[in-house]
Amino acid sequence: MKNRSGLFVSFEGIDGCGKSTQSKALRNHLEGEGQTVVLTREPGGSPGAEEIRQLVLTGEPGRWSAESELLLFNAARRDHIEKTIRPALQAGKTVITDRFADSTRVYQGATRGDLRGMVDQLHDLMIGIEPDVTFLIDMDPSTALERGLARRSGEDRYEEFGLGFQETLRHGFLALAKRFSNRCVVIDGNRDIGAVSAEICAHMAARVGSFG
Amino acid sequence: MKNRSGLFVSFEGIDGCGKSTQSKALRNHLEGEGQTVVLTREPGGSPGAEEIRQLVLTGEPGRWSAESELLLFNAARRDHIEKTIRPALQAGKTVITDRFADSTRVYQGATRGDLRGMVDQLHDLMIGIEPDVTFLIDMDPSTALERGLARRSGEDRYEEFGLGFQETLRHGFLALAKRFSNRCVVIDGNRDIGAVSAEICAHMAARVGSFG
Repeated sequence: MKNRSGLFVSFEGIDGCGKSTQSKALRNHLEGEGQTVVLTREPGGSPGAEEIRQLVLTGEPGRWSAESELLLFNAARRDHIEKTIRPALQAGKTVITDRFADSTRVYQGATRGDLRGMVDQLHDLMIGIEPDVTFLIDMDPSTALERGLARRSGEDRYEEFGLGFQETLRHGFLALAKRFSNRCVVIDGNRDIGAVSAEICAHMAARVGSFG
Repeated sequence: MKNRSGLFVSFEGIDGCGKSTQSKALRNHLEGEGQTVVLTREPGGSPGAEEIRQLVLTGEPGRWSAESELLLFNAARRDHIEKTIRPALQAGKTVITDRFADSTRVYQGATRGDLRGMVDQLHDLMIGIEPDVTFLIDMDPSTALERGLARRSGEDRYEEFGLGFQETLRHGFLALAKRFSNRCVVIDGNRDIGAVSAEICAHMAARVGSFG
């Protein structure tokens, strides 16, 4: 990704952990500082990727194999990068995405651990880029599950697997934060929104300082 | 692909070369001999793959990058294999497909030759299988182009590139037939349908003998 100059930030964590709320809070904070910010999400984030999202998330559960779904998610991600993320970064904007490749790694790892090698190779071959900073919002799965179900998100398919599955995902995200410790910041999400947001903004200020 | 017992046959060649006609003729011939045959095509060939086909072939030309399109074609192919090709082969049926991975190799090679390595690596990682026999119907591009335009196939996007492009494709297919000489049979398509069909059926009879 040549001539990239903006900062690329992702939010990750189990559903209901507050990713969307915190993505917006960070966007508002940075815009208040005069930055130009593009807030996006996965799966989706560009017109083509949103069409692929519909293909994956609607219809019979299980109509795609894990491998076909992986290819569709990577097609969506590639389009998202080309049409939304890269142009914004090249224009010097900050990009904040609610989920990116780490979600694929963790969800596939939790459901089809045997595909881990395939997930990594496909990412290296077709995607290649990682965020500069990833905020992993870590929180108690039972609280996150309640929040997720309460607002009936589009991710019910995962939530239906219940608390045990959410705990597996949580540990998957924490393992990933260790693996990519250079870019991942684990944030304790078991606090009120303002406290979580303040910590994220402080991290960003420090990062931007080190990038500048 | 464990327990595979049926024969997997593909037809390849530039549009208008007679692939569809010859696929059907071979199907009819084999059924006449008492075989159970599944005739299919790409892109498509399973309900999910047909949905992906729609996503790729409709809408603005150029709305997908070559890389995104490659991922979508591979997602469709994976679904086609899982839902249509593999179950049929495992049931001992003969599968005849009008286009398979060779078409991706040749069309991408002709439009974005720099992606050749990516095309091969993606195939090895996510698809892995090849037909037992591939009939490449080779013919004069100007005749093929006239046929293709005359029947306004769904592949107009390629045909629009004109005769020079068709010639590039023809040479791409011939190079591929050399690379995969163990499975590729080049058939001279510049003859009447019956003569071409007779040669294909004779090759099949010899192959089935060597497989049996």
